[in-house]
Amino acid sequence: MTFTPISEVGEFGLIARMQDVLADHVPASLVQGIGDDAAVYRIGEGLVHVTTTDALVEGVHFDRTFMPMGHLGWKAIAVNASDVVAMNALPRYATVALGLPGNVSVEAVEELYGGIAAACRAYGITLIGGDTTAAPRMMVSVTVIGEAREDEIVYRRGASPGDLLCVTGDLGSAYAGIRLLLAEKDRYADTGEQPDLRTFQYVVERQLRPQARLDTLRRWREIGVRPTALIDISDGLASEVNHLCRAGGVGALVETALLPVHLQTYAVAERYGEEPGGYALSGGEDYELLFAMPDEQVRQLDENTFAVVGVVMDTEDGVTQRSPEGEVTPLESAGFRHF
Amino acid sequence: MTFTPISEVGEFGLIARMQDVLADHVPASLVQGIGDDAAVYRIGEGLVHVTTTDALVEGVHFDRTFMPMGHLGWKAIAVNASDVVAMNALPRYATVALGLPGNVSVEAVEELYGGIAAACRAYGITLIGGDTTAAPRMMVSVTVIGEAREDEIVYRRGASPGDLLCVTGDLGSAYAGIRLLLAEKDRYADTGEQPDLRTFQYVVERQLRPQARLDTLRRWREIGVRPTALIDISDGLASEVNHLCRAGGVGALVETALLPVHLQTYAVAERYGEEPGGYALSGGEDYELLFAMPDEQVRQLDENTFAVVGVVMDTEDGVTQRSPEGEVTPLESAGFRHF
Repeated sequence: MTFTPISEVGEFGLIARMQDVLADHVPASLVQGIGDDAAVYRIGEGLVHVTTTDALVEGVHFDRTFMPMGHLGWKAIAVNASDVVAMNALPRYATVALGLPGNVSVEAVEELYGGIAAACRAYGITLIGGDTTAAPRMMVSVTVIGEAREDEIVYRRGASPGDLLCVTGDLGSAYAGIRLLLAEKDRYADTGEQPDLRTFQYVVERQLRPQARLDTLRRWREIGVRPTALIDISDGLASEVNHLCRAGGVGALVETALLPVHLQTYAVAERYGEEPGGYALSGGEDYELLFAMPDEQVRQLDENTFAVVGVVMDTEDGVTQRSPEGEVTPLESAGFRHF
Repeated sequence: MTFTPISEVGEFGLIARMQDVLADHVPASLVQGIGDDAAVYRIGEGLVHVTTTDALVEGVHFDRTFMPMGHLGWKAIAVNASDVVAMNALPRYATVALGLPGNVSVEAVEELYGGIAAACRAYGITLIGGDTTAAPRMMVSVTVIGEAREDEIVYRRGASPGDLLCVTGDLGSAYAGIRLLLAEKDRYADTGEQPDLRTFQYVVERQLRPQARLDTLRRWREIGVRPTALIDISDGLASEVNHLCRAGGVGALVETALLPVHLQTYAVAERYGEEPGGYALSGGEDYELLFAMPDEQVRQLDENTFAVVGVVMDTEDGVTQRSPEGEVTPLESAGFRHF
């Protein structure tokens, strides 16, 4: 019997194999299966539902020593809501499957529920189903179902050469948060000194309690603009730009000087002698939106709510980044890998 | 800080607390939230979607030493399809979140996908979304979305005194299967003797590769009958009868002499000096259907496809069982508890 370790094919390799095995049954109602931020299927009257699933596993996605249970519940909902928002759809319903080890108290579970409830309120979601089970490590698996008109859906594909590449919020701060939390945890283990995170509250919160960009989506609808391509930034900007280009058959040029980086992210990178640009390009879990949009529509947006970071190119131009010094190199994804 | 162990409130206690925390946001489209086999929400044109989630966790729900990966994939889909069927709805879509330890090979994951694909084909389901992540133990969390006309949905509530209580298939065989598998695993560890399960193939398959009763639901539709109350038997008959009575505000009398028990289930119980009636009443994971139906509709059913096991009573009559000797005692649920 052959044993191929999963690390050889990676998460995306596994998902590709899943697509192959399951490609044989595609009903007419399915608009988009596996391969975008969320699946899309018709429910009638020109409407579609948009469904995604994502699990947070203790020791892989979170560390109970510094993840408050309320934040964990919030994050499990928010990261799934983010995938629905990244299809330009409104989140509606969620189900939650919880795996609970014996050392989790009822009080802790109630705190977790509180975070789930807060995120559901924030994103207009109704929790409709739950499963709780014993498990050797804590696990929160969430499915979120969203809704939109079929013609409102925006895919990863669809960007045209000349479109501007834009991002909401700032990049790399969630990575700065986890970098700091892990270093402070180590320092506490070594010295017994209580971690002091007060001056880094922003990046810590970005890691522990990320936001789905429903606010951005609502503003687009008010103004009447729509991106040509859209994806949420869960694995780092470089990785997502490559996804968007591969899906759309286009190239891109990212200007690294334009990447929006928070002051606290700079401070964390400096503390550890690292490059803030690396945090912004490859740090995961920001859950900001990366979108392509024609110049004339971008001009209608409130300039405080996004940053232009590059431009969509022809596919032959490749996917590249230009440094402040003008050097152009391939934009390679060094996103966070679980395997 | 208070630490209440989860075992003090149990799985149902946790779900009740979840309902409390989340009861504040109920949109008009929601027909049924947490509290039945699946949630029900309107999608327009008189149709509803019916959504459920269930996770299988290694060491809790399955043992990799005797659970073939293909069967695991099948079972993860089937147990969720069963919850949708238990609302009298047809399964349509599924998402799967996989947690994979490093000692699971790509080949094993492909076998798992094969089982998922086979179950999806069998139940008319399209897999629309997946998440794969590293995890300390294997975990398969599935959400299944089904569809029906709103007036077709059958809840746990709805049974009337006088309705017959019926079950599909046979009871206790999935428990006989796990009883045998665990005993043979121990015997193998002690003696090194290879387990021989050939004469018990039926009960082993009932445990490892259960069926959702979509066939029953289709027959009901053909004949034009509909139960007044419906639930799938995942925690053992006694537990499910109590759920159905509590939800419907009715009592019940179960005739234990009428419980359908397979010959192999008798043989396994005999081998271990145990009561087959206990297997049938409290053994979980059969995924058969328990339903209440007026006598005149029951007469229209093919008698080879179900068994009458009792009758719905007034709530004051309580939930009871009558032994073959005529002794009436409370029907207490001793269903499988994870916590």
